[in-house]
Amino acid sequence: MIDCGRFPAKRVEGDVVEVSADVWRDGHEILRAELRYKAPGSRSWARAPMRRVDAHVDGDRWAGEFKVDAPGRWQYSIEAWTDVFATWRDELARKVDAGQEDLQSELLEGIALLRGAVGGVADQRDRRVVEHAIEELEHPDVKPQEKFPVALDVQLLEAVERHPDRAGSAKLDRPLELIVDRERARFGSWYELFPRSWGGFAGVEEQLPRLKELGFDVIYLPPIHPIGRKNRKGRNNALTAGPDDPGSPWAIGDETGGHDAIHPDLGTLEDFDRLTARARELDMDVALDFAIQCSADHPWLTDHPEWFNHRPDGTLKYAENPPKRYQDIYNVNWDTDDWPALWEALLAVVRHWVEHGVRVFRVDNPHTKPLGFWEWLIREVTAEHPDVIFLSEAFTRRARMVGLAKAGFSQSYTYFTWKNARWELEEFVHELLTPIQREVLRPNLFANTPDILHEYLQHGGPSAFATRLVLAATLSPTYGIYSGYEHFENVPVRPGSEEYLDSEKYEMKARELDGPLLPFIRTVNEIRRENPALQHFANVTFLDTQNDGLIAYAKQAQGNTVVCVVNLDPHEAQEGLVHVPDHLGLPVAFVAHDLLTDERFGWHLGGNYVRLEPPFKQAHVLRIEGP
Amino acid sequence: MIDCGRFPAKRVEGDVVEVSADVWRDGHEILRAELRYKAPGSRSWARAPMRRVDAHVDGDRWAGEFKVDAPGRWQYSIEAWTDVFATWRDELARKVDAGQEDLQSELLEGIALLRGAVGGVADQRDRRVVEHAIEELEHPDVKPQEKFPVALDVQLLEAVERHPDRAGSAKLDRPLELIVDRERARFGSWYELFPRSWGGFAGVEEQLPRLKELGFDVIYLPPIHPIGRKNRKGRNNALTAGPDDPGSPWAIGDETGGHDAIHPDLGTLEDFDRLTARARELDMDVALDFAIQCSADHPWLTDHPEWFNHRPDGTLKYAENPPKRYQDIYNVNWDTDDWPALWEALLAVVRHWVEHGVRVFRVDNPHTKPLGFWEWLIREVTAEHPDVIFLSEAFTRRARMVGLAKAGFSQSYTYFTWKNARWELEEFVHELLTPIQREVLRPNLFANTPDILHEYLQHGGPSAFATRLVLAATLSPTYGIYSGYEHFENVPVRPGSEEYLDSEKYEMKARELDGPLLPFIRTVNEIRRENPALQHFANVTFLDTQNDGLIAYAKQAQGNTVVCVVNLDPHEAQEGLVHVPDHLGLPVAFVAHDLLTDERFGWHLGGNYVRLEPPFKQAHVLRIEGP
Repeated sequence: MIDCGRFPAKRVEGDVVEVSADVWRDGHEILRAELRYKAPGSRSWARAPMRRVDAHVDGDRWAGEFKVDAPGRWQYSIEAWTDVFATWRDELARKVDAGQEDLQSELLEGIALLRGAVGGVADQRDRRVVEHAIEELEHPDVKPQEKFPVALDVQLLEAVERHPDRAGSAKLDRPLELIVDRERARFGSWYELFPRSWGGFAGVEEQLPRLKELGFDVIYLPPIHPIGRKNRKGRNNALTAGPDDPGSPWAIGDETGGHDAIHPDLGTLEDFDRLTARARELDMDVALDFAIQCSADHPWLTDHPEWFNHRPDGTLKYAENPPKRYQDIYNVNWDTDDWPALWEALLAVVRHWVEHGVRVFRVDNPHTKPLGFWEWLIREVTAEHPDVIFLSEAFTRRARMVGLAKAGFSQSYTYFTWKNARWELEEFVHELLTPIQREVLRPNLFANTPDILHEYLQHGGPSAFATRLVLAATLSPTYGIYSGYEHFENVPVRPGSEEYLDSEKYEMKARELDGPLLPFIRTVNEIRRENPALQHFANVTFLDTQNDGLIAYAKQAQGNTVVCVVNLDPHEAQEGLVHVPDHLGLPVAFVAHDLLTDERFGWHLGGNYVRLEPPFKQAHVLRIEGP
Repeated sequence: MIDCGRFPAKRVEGDVVEVSADVWRDGHEILRAELRYKAPGSRSWARAPMRRVDAHVDGDRWAGEFKVDAPGRWQYSIEAWTDVFATWRDELARKVDAGQEDLQSELLEGIALLRGAVGGVADQRDRRVVEHAIEELEHPDVKPQEKFPVALDVQLLEAVERHPDRAGSAKLDRPLELIVDRERARFGSWYELFPRSWGGFAGVEEQLPRLKELGFDVIYLPPIHPIGRKNRKGRNNALTAGPDDPGSPWAIGDETGGHDAIHPDLGTLEDFDRLTARARELDMDVALDFAIQCSADHPWLTDHPEWFNHRPDGTLKYAENPPKRYQDIYNVNWDTDDWPALWEALLAVVRHWVEHGVRVFRVDNPHTKPLGFWEWLIREVTAEHPDVIFLSEAFTRRARMVGLAKAGFSQSYTYFTWKNARWELEEFVHELLTPIQREVLRPNLFANTPDILHEYLQHGGPSAFATRLVLAATLSPTYGIYSGYEHFENVPVRPGSEEYLDSEKYEMKARELDGPLLPFIRTVNEIRRENPALQHFANVTFLDTQNDGLIAYAKQAQGNTVVCVVNLDPHEAQEGLVHVPDHLGLPVAFVAHDLLTDERFGWHLGGNYVRLEPPFKQAHVLRIEGP
């Protein structure tokens, strides 16, 4: 229950949803409780039993579960009631056990209860059982002592309980909601590329089989729309562009079109359709960037000036983050009186691309737009297309990131790139696992982005790239890299900056899938696919290593245990003892099979010696196998 | 916020209530937040500022506080809004700092904001400040550069902010409620006595000054009503009473009256009025027992048979907990169609005794009555008399005990008597300190009751009584004993039972205040009164002792630190090292002044040797004093 039911928790298709609650009332009555749940689009509520799970500590905690077998918004609630017949039967049993015999009055009460119940017993056979019991209990020739076994018969109890009388039941004030996404929302490998550097849509389409082979599931494209000319940025973010500079794809729109148009250099809408169709054949996704901002040439500025901020002199007001000025970009004015039309126009943009085969959107800077807008937009889109996934690019304060996740974003960018020390990484993961965050925020760990080249990568050489890749790909079931990573691209625009030199944001590159890290990436992606333990996030246990230069963690799912040990030092060998604790439930001795090198080590509970050495041996990814 | 605001948290008169919340919105605007709160009976909401308290970790947590200076139900909420003028001013300042000069448009925006604000500036002087700024900013002869200092003037900002425009503010969906009790709900020493063993009301009245001197605040009387004759219990709970057996006070009512009548042996209503008046003079309370059950002779059984359970043959049904039968007691039928009249009759009982000076009720077995009834009754009574305190006698499953506390009970009995080992006591206290419980459930630690003579007391001799008294009186600000404790009464009705032999529940005693433990109890109560640290519950830190036979804990409040060390072994001396951790904020070396013996010890951070030895030295209660 997130924020008193205000927001939904998240699951994926095929999950078994566990629900628990304290269920109690005054007195000593026997209670019953059920889960009620409703699939998206279903008219009727299904039921699943709940059982008291902590009777051993005399608690009132009940639990039940149901399986979510379709994407969409599910609803669930809890219903609990007093089981009057079972309570009566239980009291009678205790009296009979104690040898009490003057129980005529009790039997009359029981007959009354059965007479009240029999009308609700829909099943023929069960009704006969109940009717027969009533006859016996009422029969003047049967002695009271002979009636007790009839009244206490387990088959009678079962017949009654199969048709419970829920009169006076208690329910939650209102049902809770659950977002169920397709599995890719939880588990997927992302590759980000600028299509203009790969020969446009046709070039990207050509690469798809190879990207598939490398283990990537989602190919994420920065904005594919026409780019404004006015105040266009030049290479390395220069204020004025040269005549051949292509500009930043995030300066969206020119006189030929805006968010629903395609940059002519990339191809046509038909080319795009072919790209998404080919991706679908390969069970891959093409993810688009949804950036709500307009270049000075975007048609909306003239068609809908009321959607934008104005200066007192009536002119449009470009974006600022004082003292910085973004003369090439205009933000929409969310406070416009015409906001319903603005919201609808933005929804139409998303719908347009959904119609052209896009099922994943990476949303640019969502934290600078109203939360209510996202909640509405995501609900509208997923109501029609529950397979659509939204990734929130919010590098902002924690409460806001979590707020966007609550509002419905399927995934979120994180602070991962800035977490490089062992304690930072462990703290980072534990924060994502707090009771609320683990239910709503699915982290997508990008190892780099066009905006973030961390100094760890700038200075660590190839071993730094291997370390960060293994961390991203094994800590989280969803991770990504931006092309160039596999080439160890590591030169910043200037010392101290996280921007790339000659950033692809402002120029075209000639890219090919030939980076030296690709074979390693392919292996890691294969391992991810073969090991269920690496397809979940919350199933992590950090292990001590007696060395802060080594991080180690175990992940477990469906009987599969994987232990990762990663050298955080890109320059020096690090050695330590990886402590395998009892509570993982492993045998005393076992084989730790390194899936990166195919080496096998004899490991055991307690400390296990590990030495990792750059550049070629930065990590163990160990599948635990029988002794 | 308890259960999404469904139930109130609790405080006492004079408390400063701290409230915190995440406050944020999309974008980079400057926000403001205020607490809103309303005293009971007040028509208007007061405001208190909230401030962002975790800016240092880039968080969105805001906090504020308000003082509750009267008992009753307070309400509070949070209001937050965008500070448009401060946001504009902040952006302008950043532009001016960056040397930007083409800010004519910004100044025009500022003028528009000030013009919009000036109407809401009620204060004359502030309005002049704003009007003067507008004049300067609009003046054609003043150069833009000279206008910046006017626009950025702190006095202008303050003048505007003193009259904030809260347009578009966000509030909680509904205000939260807070029960504010008088201080005795949190801090008090209870003494339970059967008035029939002390010469009735007049005899008890005579003892009041001496009980006051001993440090007791609340004198709790078991039911004072007529006792049924039919099926009356005899001595030691015998099924049939002898002709002179007085019966159990909990078998309430005979033909002369029920819950609003007085047993003739105890005195008259006038005697009772005198008792409560004398108690009030001494700043003490007389607590009554509110037990909703009737003897077979209670007038309600004939006047309102519809309020009770019936057997199928139409006769009334006595109380049972199968196979046990309570033939002397009839429980009310909460499911009666006439429940509104029943509820009103019970409320009338409480009101009757409130009118006769009772301000504390100990409620018998509330967990077998509907939670909704208690919530209603307590609300009704305290709406008229916010100084009334309700103690819940619920020895039941944890969720139910906490549920009763949420519903409004001021205090609750606990499992304290059954917690005797060090780990049990620490676990017991920690459970009471979980985030929800600490806000709603105030424990009242009775060391014994007429129903509970724990085997620790049966077998431990006088040192066991000293140990349990110190634990009850220093772990909790509210504690109690049942008379006889000070005489070390320790004989059970039979081995293995927690019932007293010749229990006062079924016979009269001749009691006097002359027990050998009384001087010790008086000292402990004095120490409680003089040390604020012992007047709160949640301010406890358990200290290691390197010996499970010794429990130690520090309590801190208002600059007062008390460290208690208690020997849990009633038979043998125990020694250990009490570890004083850094985080208590004490100096490196200090004096630990034993308030029980007036001894002074030189203590320091880290381990301090302690030896405690029965029978006369079972505990240290150490006030920490300067070095």
